[in-house]
Amino acid sequence: MNYGLGEREFKNWIVAEERFSTNHLGKCEAIMYLGNGYMGIRSATEETYIGETRNTFISGSFNKFDEHEVTELPNVADVTNLKIIIDGERFSLEFGEVQEYVRKLNIKTAELSRSFIWTSPKGKKIQFEFKRFVSLKNLHLISMKMEVTALSHDIEFKVNSGINGQMTNTGSQHFSEGERRIYDKQYVQLIQTTTQSKIHIVINTTHKVMIGDVEVNEPVMTMDRRKVGLTYNVQIQKGKTLAFEKLANIFTTIDKDVEGKSLDEIRKISLENIKEENCKGYVNVFKEHVNSWKEKVWEKYRIDIKSSEEFDLLAIRFALYNLTAMTPAHDSNMGIGAKGLSGEGYKGHSFWDTEAFILPFFIYCNPIVARSLLEYRYKGLAGARKKAKENGYEGAMYPWEAAWPNDGEVTPVWGGVDIVTGKQAKIWTGFLEQHITSDIAYAIWQYYMITGDEEFMNNCGYEILFDTAKFWVSRLEWNEEKQEYHINDVIGPDEYKEHVNNNAFTNYMAHHNITLAIEYCEKLRKEDKVLYSKLDKILELESSIELWKDKVEKIYLPTPNKDNVIPQDDTYLQKKIINLDKYKNQTKVGSLFEDFNSEQVNEMQISKQADIMMLFYLLENKFSNDVKVASYNYYEPKTLHDSSLSLSTHCILANDLGHKELAYELFNRAINIDLGPSMTTSDHGIHAASFGGAWQCVVMGFAGVRMLGGELRINPSLPEKWEDLSFNIYWKGQLLNIQVTCENVEVSTVGSEKVTLIICNKKYTFNKSIKVKL
Amino acid sequence: MNYGLGEREFKNWIVAEERFSTNHLGKCEAIMYLGNGYMGIRSATEETYIGETRNTFISGSFNKFDEHEVTELPNVADVTNLKIIIDGERFSLEFGEVQEYVRKLNIKTAELSRSFIWTSPKGKKIQFEFKRFVSLKNLHLISMKMEVTALSHDIEFKVNSGINGQMTNTGSQHFSEGERRIYDKQYVQLIQTTTQSKIHIVINTTHKVMIGDVEVNEPVMTMDRRKVGLTYNVQIQKGKTLAFEKLANIFTTIDKDVEGKSLDEIRKISLENIKEENCKGYVNVFKEHVNSWKEKVWEKYRIDIKSSEEFDLLAIRFALYNLTAMTPAHDSNMGIGAKGLSGEGYKGHSFWDTEAFILPFFIYCNPIVARSLLEYRYKGLAGARKKAKENGYEGAMYPWEAAWPNDGEVTPVWGGVDIVTGKQAKIWTGFLEQHITSDIAYAIWQYYMITGDEEFMNNCGYEILFDTAKFWVSRLEWNEEKQEYHINDVIGPDEYKEHVNNNAFTNYMAHHNITLAIEYCEKLRKEDKVLYSKLDKILELESSIELWKDKVEKIYLPTPNKDNVIPQDDTYLQKKIINLDKYKNQTKVGSLFEDFNSEQVNEMQISKQADIMMLFYLLENKFSNDVKVASYNYYEPKTLHDSSLSLSTHCILANDLGHKELAYELFNRAINIDLGPSMTTSDHGIHAASFGGAWQCVVMGFAGVRMLGGELRINPSLPEKWEDLSFNIYWKGQLLNIQVTCENVEVSTVGSEKVTLIICNKKYTFNKSIKVKL
Repeated sequence: MNYGLGEREFKNWIVAEERFSTNHLGKCEAIMYLGNGYMGIRSATEETYIGETRNTFISGSFNKFDEHEVTELPNVADVTNLKIIIDGERFSLEFGEVQEYVRKLNIKTAELSRSFIWTSPKGKKIQFEFKRFVSLKNLHLISMKMEVTALSHDIEFKVNSGINGQMTNTGSQHFSEGERRIYDKQYVQLIQTTTQSKIHIVINTTHKVMIGDVEVNEPVMTMDRRKVGLTYNVQIQKGKTLAFEKLANIFTTIDKDVEGKSLDEIRKISLENIKEENCKGYVNVFKEHVNSWKEKVWEKYRIDIKSSEEFDLLAIRFALYNLTAMTPAHDSNMGIGAKGLSGEGYKGHSFWDTEAFILPFFIYCNPIVARSLLEYRYKGLAGARKKAKENGYEGAMYPWEAAWPNDGEVTPVWGGVDIVTGKQAKIWTGFLEQHITSDIAYAIWQYYMITGDEEFMNNCGYEILFDTAKFWVSRLEWNEEKQEYHINDVIGPDEYKEHVNNNAFTNYMAHHNITLAIEYCEKLRKEDKVLYSKLDKILELESSIELWKDKVEKIYLPTPNKDNVIPQDDTYLQKKIINLDKYKNQTKVGSLFEDFNSEQVNEMQISKQADIMMLFYLLENKFSNDVKVASYNYYEPKTLHDSSLSLSTHCILANDLGHKELAYELFNRAINIDLGPSMTTSDHGIHAASFGGAWQCVVMGFAGVRMLGGELRINPSLPEKWEDLSFNIYWKGQLLNIQVTCENVEVSTVGSEKVTLIICNKKYTFNKSIKVKL
Repeated sequence: MNYGLGEREFKNWIVAEERFSTNHLGKCEAIMYLGNGYMGIRSATEETYIGETRNTFISGSFNKFDEHEVTELPNVADVTNLKIIIDGERFSLEFGEVQEYVRKLNIKTAELSRSFIWTSPKGKKIQFEFKRFVSLKNLHLISMKMEVTALSHDIEFKVNSGINGQMTNTGSQHFSEGERRIYDKQYVQLIQTTTQSKIHIVINTTHKVMIGDVEVNEPVMTMDRRKVGLTYNVQIQKGKTLAFEKLANIFTTIDKDVEGKSLDEIRKISLENIKEENCKGYVNVFKEHVNSWKEKVWEKYRIDIKSSEEFDLLAIRFALYNLTAMTPAHDSNMGIGAKGLSGEGYKGHSFWDTEAFILPFFIYCNPIVARSLLEYRYKGLAGARKKAKENGYEGAMYPWEAAWPNDGEVTPVWGGVDIVTGKQAKIWTGFLEQHITSDIAYAIWQYYMITGDEEFMNNCGYEILFDTAKFWVSRLEWNEEKQEYHINDVIGPDEYKEHVNNNAFTNYMAHHNITLAIEYCEKLRKEDKVLYSKLDKILELESSIELWKDKVEKIYLPTPNKDNVIPQDDTYLQKKIINLDKYKNQTKVGSLFEDFNSEQVNEMQISKQADIMMLFYLLENKFSNDVKVASYNYYEPKTLHDSSLSLSTHCILANDLGHKELAYELFNRAINIDLGPSMTTSDHGIHAASFGGAWQCVVMGFAGVRMLGGELRINPSLPEKWEDLSFNIYWKGQLLNIQVTCENVEVSTVGSEKVTLIICNKKYTFNKSIKVKL
């Protein structure tokens, strides 16, 4: 891998691959994937290779294959594949000779390109150039271009291109085949319908094929099962270039912009749409797309790092690219998948990854999107209430994995092989990893504190806060001996510990959730009687609040032991300690399970990820520095960082605790989760949370931005290698520009309202701007 | 392609490929497929190539993907694929150098083998030998062996092997995923259940891996979605050989030998079964299999041709191989698919191909199997009655395509692209190709005449004959003007003519069907009152027979025109005639549709296949020689033989009409349908009917064997190149051996009963044997 080609204009905007190998196809397919929140397309090459994974996902188009499987984002028909035959032989980079190869994802323009000179096994030199993007202007649009120049000989060039609905999710076919049709011998259309959720997908494609000024017409029409396309046979004379443009669009019956339209109407609309875009040509459609990225992303999410390590800035831009590509900002019925829209991993489901890792970015940088993501959780209340009821609890118990809002819990139940029994291992998270509920409550509180969005709170926020509190209150278990409430049989953030009692993170966060609910409930009772009475009708607040108050005080909150270490749960500290060097030095995540099954891992002091550290980060004021240091030093050596959620939290904590070098090292590991040298860990898709995590490392970590008790604190401490860091955030609706150097921090606003901030432990109130020496 | 490697023992038993190319993978996958009637496995290579089609089918396991698709034989989980990594690189014949390559299907032993010396891109020489068979002894069993010898260097050899349930039927997934399990770290099991028909499939596999005398143990267990397996990592030292045996079995809940057992019981039985077979090892399991082929096929279906063209004998043996591999002789709930068990083509459905082309072989050579195939049609009566009713007719209207007996019509409704409209073309055969009903009646009559099996007639045959007649009688349309019954809006055998009136074949065969019914009905009324009254209750014979008699006489039976040509239908002879040279010389079947759509073809005098010729063949005595000659000369030049059903009929007719050279040429074309040089026409599977056709060319054609009016006639006329032809057939339960030379014909029997035959137009009665000069 190579980052930054050195040319001035491309500096820190390019992720590039300079040698093609079929051994690790998943890497670039995933990390160079194209998306616009509406859809995501994995960057499999135009030509096919063994081991490739070709995916097109449409946000929200969930379908359940059968009653034994959970709902997932289905792999929609593919338009990216081109079957290229040169002089009767299949074109492949595995044959012949390849020179000047480069594949690039230009982050700035969100365009994928690939170019090389290929000498065929017969000795003919041919230059190839491929381009592709998924439009941010017209969310339905995919645009591709291929240029082929015959450098040394005439060539017979044949290309079959169209729409291939034979794609599956690793064997599970989610679509009934609809009509295949070719209009006017050039507009190719395929209809698919999800088998269970009955979402219709309409896909169109068309081509413009030129040699010089001469348009190539009369392709042969081809239809196969679930497949329709056109084959072009052309002779490219020596010195000539074939320009092959392919435009495709996708519409569905869940699209907001065609809401209420029939399938027939959508077919017509989509056909009109592609005809219109087709008139523009690749160049102009691309211009519009680049403009959208400029306006909606690069100007809006302005961030700059002056570092002697140029990769740092590239990585943060790459994070912003991904945060844009994967987020369905257009529709609050949809959440963010743990792998974005870049792979089948985690089936497109949303986890606490959104609230704990990604949402802070949107709250600070694009509150409208943050609100949409929280509205998704509001729409998910029905499913959360269902889950609570099914488990014998009250209120809203959020699903560990979420898909369509009212689906409820969609975590699969069976996983990979248990190396001891040879059976499939049971997945317990959907049953036991319950902290997701308080994580969502926490996120709502954070959103409210940072944005001051009363409207959202009135319409959605309070109801979630109260109903999640109701869940926790019903969930508490009275321990007669200790005379306190326990939360038993859970999984905390550290998923290597199943069926534990009193996971500290879980207990503290539940306590926080209930506390918030009490606070806001009393506030509303006083200040907004109409709303209070409306919510009381739904949630029986009046009869609950005294119970909440009584119980919340008796929740057991683990305290530090004699070594100042907070026990992660009731038994962690008593478990066996083994040498973890082998796994700490692993090249592949989860290597532990080649030696142990999960029951064995459960009995040892081994952590997958930040657990207590996450608690310190979210409820920072509840713990002393000594406890944080001691706990960090105790747990980190036992943590394998086998989750992509682990490193950014450790980085922030390390910086908080003054370990600057360590923090920067952890930051580096965090931004290398997908961009780094490991060639297989992104196979199932990029790590969505890690991009939110990377942004948090920079803003929450090195810039020390934190919302604490409703106030904004800035407490920067830049890495040695950084000269300057500047970025925008919104605070209570106002845009702040923050610039940090090793010497001072400067905050300026665009608006005229006064702003109050705590900078380096001192409160400042200002309008326009302020500069504070560090 | 090469046939016969020259070694004496292999002579005329080997179909071989001497150069591997990924351009035409389908050819050998299909024509070298392995089967035992219970299952069929396409011969995709162990290692994967782009463009391969890997199929495993279990007879009768039909499933319907959704309400828009028709039921089809699902592609069961694969066990043939081995993922081989040598020194960290994927093994593929597309890389490195290949020497001494040969892939062979040994027809005698029904074993597929492949061997070569491969020099890796890194310059290491390695010898490979692969073997594989599907047992005819234990129908559930698949056995594979791979031997790898490191010739020049030590190699790191890694192989992943197991069961892969990610297979689909060109994108349609027919299975819900059941449990994956590895017992004792060595017995790998995967359960699948068809989504609609709810058939459970249990697949097991196990390995024995040796280097010299040392067994390789401790594989790594791997599980993925729909996939489970083991990975072996071994070092093969220079000069050493790795012997890798893989045994697999498949059981289903529709298997007769585990009828009534629960899934859990079948899992246990199948596991016991594979453990038992595993103790024997490849060599011994193979011996048992070869023995079964000897007993059940080569000794039973003895046929010998002494020809200067050795390919003739190989081809006829290849036909017998295929007739065995594809026929579900073990279960009368199952029919023969038009592509056998060798590909997805025609979805495993049975057509008139069985009755008109394949059944004669079984009637004459293995009447028990013939009976089972007719019982399949008897079980299909419910579906046939349903179809009649749905179409507003009485009696039994057989489905054009049949799957599970009571499914009724399963012909798909939409096909490939219409090049004029760009829409999918409608498939009319399921609606209009109605002659299948009389073809089945004809086959029953033929079976009865040749075997004399009264029991079958009493239990099944009469009921079919009468109920199919009832259909036809209700189907006839009164033409007031002509005062006769017409059959309008049909497709005859020639499928290039849709929506025609009075297709001669259809009218004559319907007439024959009704005539037979009247004859047997009257016979039963006189001779078997109990049976008659039983059938009368079901079919209301008493009230029908006079109507049948009245109508049958008034059916319009097309007569020759002034040129002695029988019109194929009411309009054929008036249609446009175009020059067909281009299509007659095509290298690919159906090239016509690249220039015309079916509506345009319908308006021209172009035939797909034998139509009037088929009529002459089946009802030979109804037409004069002059009419046959004139019609042959008229229609053959207009026939593109775009159906594999065409050539054998033309061959037999040509021989009947005295065109010996032409007949032999047509025979040659017929036996080259799959074995010939066309590298793509077998892609979707072998042509099942063509193997019955090849046998008929020899026995009905060159030997001139024919059942005529209940008598057996032999009227041989061997090709110039043939010296001697001998074969066995059963006549009324007696085994006859017939030996034909250009000078005489000799018939001998094993039994002691007298036999009456017509040899060269003269009747002979004899026991033991008779020799007649030609």
